[in-house]
Order: sequence, then C-alpha cells, then structure tokens
Amino acid sequence: MPHISLPEGLPGIRGPFAFRPETAKPLCELAEVLLHAPGTLALGERELIATYVSSRNDCYFCQNSHGALAACHLDGDEQLVLDVKSDFEHAAISEKLKALLAIAGKVQVGGKNVTTADVERARVHGATDQEIHDTVLIAAAFCMYNRYVDGLATWAPTDPAKYRERAAKVAREGYLGIPVEVQAARTGA
Amino acid sequence: MPHISLPEGLPGIRGPFAFRPETAKPLCELAEVLLHAPGTLALGERELIATYVSSRNDCYFCQNSHGALAACHLDGDEQLVLDVKSDFEHAAISEKLKALLAIAGKVQVGGKNVTTADVERARVHGATDQEIHDTVLIAAAFCMYNRYVDGLATWAPTDPAKYRERAAKVAREGYLGIPVEVQAARTGA
Repeated sequence: MPHISLPEGLPGIRGPFAFRPETAKPLCELAEVLLHAPGTLALGERELIATYVSSRNDCYFCQNSHGALAACHLDGDEQLVLDVKSDFEHAAISEKLKALLAIAGKVQVGGKNVTTADVERARVHGATDQEIHDTVLIAAAFCMYNRYVDGLATWAPTDPAKYRERAAKVAREGYLGIPVEVQAARTGA
Repeated sequence: MPHISLPEGLPGIRGPFAFRPETAKPLCELAEVLLHAPGTLALGERELIATYVSSRNDCYFCQNSHGALAACHLDGDEQLVLDVKSDFEHAAISEKLKALLAIAGKVQVGGKNVTTADVERARVHGATDQEIHDTVLIAAAFCMYNRYVDGLATWAPTDPAKYRERAAKVAREGYLGIPVEVQAARTGA
C-alpha cells in the first residue's frame, strides 16, 4: 500500500503524478526532452539507458515500463532489453552505446565515479558532448524517478502485457500528455 | 575540468543549464515548485532537506548553494545548517522536520528504504500527505541534481561569500529566472 493516499487505479509514477500535478508537469517535460524529443541518440538507445539504470536501482515499475518502451522502439526485441540489463558489454548493441551505458552505470552509483577515461571511451566511439550530457542526465533523472516511485511505495502491475500495451501508446505519443491523462483518470473525465 | 565543453564562468549546475536550455527549463521549474512556490513547509525547511541530501551525496556545489539558501531563509543561521548536516536528530529543529529528514535520508540511499514506521513518525508530528510527498520528491530530485553536477565534473567556487551572495538573489527571486539568466551570461547579453 502506498505511504500516502494516492488516487486509485493508477500504477507506478502515475499515482503521484495525479496527486501533485504541479510537479508532474516538469517531471514529464524532462522525460519528453530526454527520451522522446528529436535527438541524435535513437529512442531505443535512450530508453535502454533509462531501463538499465532503473534495473540497477531495482525499481520494478520503471525497469518494466521503460524496458517495454525500449523493446517497442527496437522492433519488439525484448531479449535485447534483458541482455542489456544483465550484461550490456556482451549485448548486441553498438560500442558507443556500451560506452554510454558504462557512464550511466557510474552515475547511478554517484556522479564522482565518472572518469575522464569513461568519457574518452565514449568519444572514441563517436559520442558527442550532447550525447554524453544527455546520458549523464538520463541516468541522474532515473535515480530520481526510481526513488520517487519506490519512496512512496506505489503499486505496479505484474502482467507484462500491461507494460507492452502502455509502452505502445507512450512510444507513439510521448510523455507530455501524461499529466492531463492522469488528471482525467482521477476525476473520471 | 568538466567532462564536456561547457560555457565558461558559470559554476556548478549553471554550466549544464546554459549548455542544454531544453532540460534547464523543466529542471528549474521542478526546483521552483518544490523549493520556492507557496506551500506548508517553510522555505528554510525545504532547503534544509535539499542541503542534507546533497551533503549525504557529497555534492560540494549543491550542499553549499542550498545550504546558503537555507541559512538565508533562517535569518542567517549558518550554524543550524551545519548542525542539520552533521546530526539533525540533535539539531534545534522541529520534531516534524526531524522525521521528514529521516525519510529524506532513507530516500537518498534508495526508495525502498522508507518504512511505514518512518512515515508514521512524520504523521505523529503533524506532517501531511503533501509534505511527505514533497519530502520524498525533494530527496529524490537532489539525487538527480547532485549526480548531474558531479557526473559532468562541473567546477564550484570555494569562497563562502560567493554562495551567500548568490543565495540572497535566489531566495528573493526563485528558480524560474535561472534558464534565461544563464543564456544571457553565455551570450554576454
């Protein structure tokens, strides 16, 4: 049961979003810029970074919702998402993405863990400053989203079909509509 | 030296803000709602929570900038800020704030560490659902801001006067103007 009285029927982060629309707005705008807006990192790559960090933070809701989103952007390849979570250095992804995931893993533990060598490795494989910036911020942001979801003890569906269904919608529409959607669900509109 | 090429002369988080205005906007809006907009937790209390979490994450820039902001809202009581950082359970603060800081400390380690007993303690001392929500999200958000600042290896001033001066301005004006301000500094406008 959640630690505070959240609107019912909304899984994971959507309960707190409905509870506090003032913070839902910037939280969804941040997700939109980092994970869905035009950029040089593919949408599947960005969602893999989010999934990997959420997995390391042991956040069930976030690793499954963003894992389903990553798979959605990767032609349904759910095995690749599992491979990245368990051992990304040997997964069938680019050397650049491996280097970015290594940076994300350092950030998950603490910002000071990122070394010049980590950044150099990413550059050697073609990462730009903005890609390195966004990787650090995606990893940092999921250290927030994960703690928000678990710190309030929100509930999460266990049926993978629920995550697939939801991911298809968010992959298509992005994150900006979520605050409006959760308010409508809350008021039954 | 920062890991990526950031605009010069902007300390801490303001370098990345100038580098990536698209993410600076929601990041500053989130800080505004949590730390400066009207609410039932005093501004000094909220900045103390931010400072305490930043201190536990060993983020020099954030604990000093928000520590100076906390002192600013607490009639200049810098000793109280130090007391909260070193041992909040014995600091001259309310029992409610102690209970909220205990929750924040749990969130800093990981969301799942927050227990029903932690939340019950806060309620017994008068904390509302929204205050508990905001405490969890302030703590979670500083696990992001701290990692963002340190993960990019930004530089930070060491002179306390710089933090006091800056804090006086942010305490007065809030966080919303920062993205515009850093762009002006970047372009020399």
